[in-house]
Amino acid sequence: MNVYIIGLGLIGGSMAFDLKANYPESIIHGIDANKTHIEQALELGFIDKEGVLESLAKADVVIVAIPVNMLVRELPNILDKAGDNTLVIDAGSTKSLICKSVTNHPKRRNFLASHPIAGTEFSGPDAAIKGLFDKKTNIICEVEKTAFKLQEKAMEIFSRFGMRIRYMDPVSHDKHIAYVSHLSHISSFMLGKTVIEKERNERDIFDMAGSGFESTVRLAKSSPDMWTPIFEQNKENIIETLEEYISNLKEFKELMQSDNFKEIYTKMENTNRIKEILNGIIIKTT
Amino acid sequence: MNVYIIGLGLIGGSMAFDLKANYPESIIHGIDANKTHIEQALELGFIDKEGVLESLAKADVVIVAIPVNMLVRELPNILDKAGDNTLVIDAGSTKSLICKSVTNHPKRRNFLASHPIAGTEFSGPDAAIKGLFDKKTNIICEVEKTAFKLQEKAMEIFSRFGMRIRYMDPVSHDKHIAYVSHLSHISSFMLGKTVIEKERNERDIFDMAGSGFESTVRLAKSSPDMWTPIFEQNKENIIETLEEYISNLKEFKELMQSDNFKEIYTKMENTNRIKEILNGIIIKTT
Repeated sequence: MNVYIIGLGLIGGSMAFDLKANYPESIIHGIDANKTHIEQALELGFIDKEGVLESLAKADVVIVAIPVNMLVRELPNILDKAGDNTLVIDAGSTKSLICKSVTNHPKRRNFLASHPIAGTEFSGPDAAIKGLFDKKTNIICEVEKTAFKLQEKAMEIFSRFGMRIRYMDPVSHDKHIAYVSHLSHISSFMLGKTVIEKERNERDIFDMAGSGFESTVRLAKSSPDMWTPIFEQNKENIIETLEEYISNLKEFKELMQSDNFKEIYTKMENTNRIKEILNGIIIKTT
Repeated sequence: MNVYIIGLGLIGGSMAFDLKANYPESIIHGIDANKTHIEQALELGFIDKEGVLESLAKADVVIVAIPVNMLVRELPNILDKAGDNTLVIDAGSTKSLICKSVTNHPKRRNFLASHPIAGTEFSGPDAAIKGLFDKKTNIICEVEKTAFKLQEKAMEIFSRFGMRIRYMDPVSHDKHIAYVSHLSHISSFMLGKTVIEKERNERDIFDMAGSGFESTVRLAKSSPDMWTPIFEQNKENIIETLEEYISNLKEFKELMQSDNFKEIYTKMENTNRIKEILNGIIIKTT
């Protein structure tokens, strides 16, 4: 199998590792605007050689794992260069604009819109890990717009990776993912910011931070290069979630100010049922 | 060593495990208002027998690990019953009111105010684990008010547990801990609430949740029995941190509304230095 990975970061690199493991006869070509990433990927061994966009016509599978702003810009160009039987898969955390960018493309049927929910707070070739996608969810959008033979090829790959598949339209994807992923990142970034601002004058504060703090601010380590375009593309949905989140926080604060700790207890108790939901995630991911 | 553990939950139970491991000759007595907890503790093997408050005069060490509202109420009573050489240690997540509750107590010198920063989102006897305190920070308040001999005894115990010690006055403790612990819990509870409210009509949303979401809402599993009194006792500090957090979230939202993604990038980039701080925590806790 002739594979091209465009974007050699966490997702692209981890895809490369799993493709090689599941299709040992495949040749993995790497493409990245950053030459250092190519060198790192060769050294880490997840690509066999550097590739060029001009050779995509010979590709069986192309994985496009670049920031979503670049995806929207480059995807039509990549499809232009793809062969008649080439399967092009993206991995973007937004889906509406990406799907729109190729709606009327003559090779739309060569493209499968996907969002593997498998990121971590780390980025770059060094962050790539083997088995990253095992038991993770992959959201596929507009599956009916992909050629049936290429759907089959993609499902075979995802199945070998151990992923479970969910089908969704791009608008619903972007609305839901704002709640369960994008909002978490903002809440974490702003928590980190709030505490760092305090720390300017009081360094000792971090001696007091424990694993609970670590867990809630972990996502604040994420790459701004990746996340700024996601926030931009999913702006309307994210603003809605942020408004609900801020309103819940204000209500909590007002309950404290009016000493209504009975209601605070009830709110926390009701939220405890997040346990069941998290159990679902843990079963999926471990 | 004659030990009494009052409150057989995560902290009390874990203390019992480590005391037995480090002082194998000790007899561990368990006291808990909930009889089921006594049975569980006996079964789990971290206490040797049930104890009664009336026997505290014979205790070498008393660990009080109960919710902070009960601590403020019961600590004077516990000190009343303590022997002249008994060391009484608390583990409350607030320190000002607890220290105040015994300021003028005739046995104030038998008490050491401590906050081992070692909690998890779980509670009850089942949550107790061996080695919980290893490499964790323990904040000691008003150390000068504890008898020197009893300070020494406490430091020997904490040192055997593998804890690092920080000294702080109770007012500073409560101010700082609001940022690095209490605020994280509220941010997590409200994130869970925001998403659960959405989920009422749309169950599918949780199929899309990944490890990032899991990490940010983990603390929303915490016990309302433990946390409501903490929020009540540290009300003023927490309201201040909440106001700063809400203001940062609103600013982020407004930047999105005005399409100022350049500034959003910068804010995230600046917050990325949380990495260094988290590295410090990870070195401590692993």
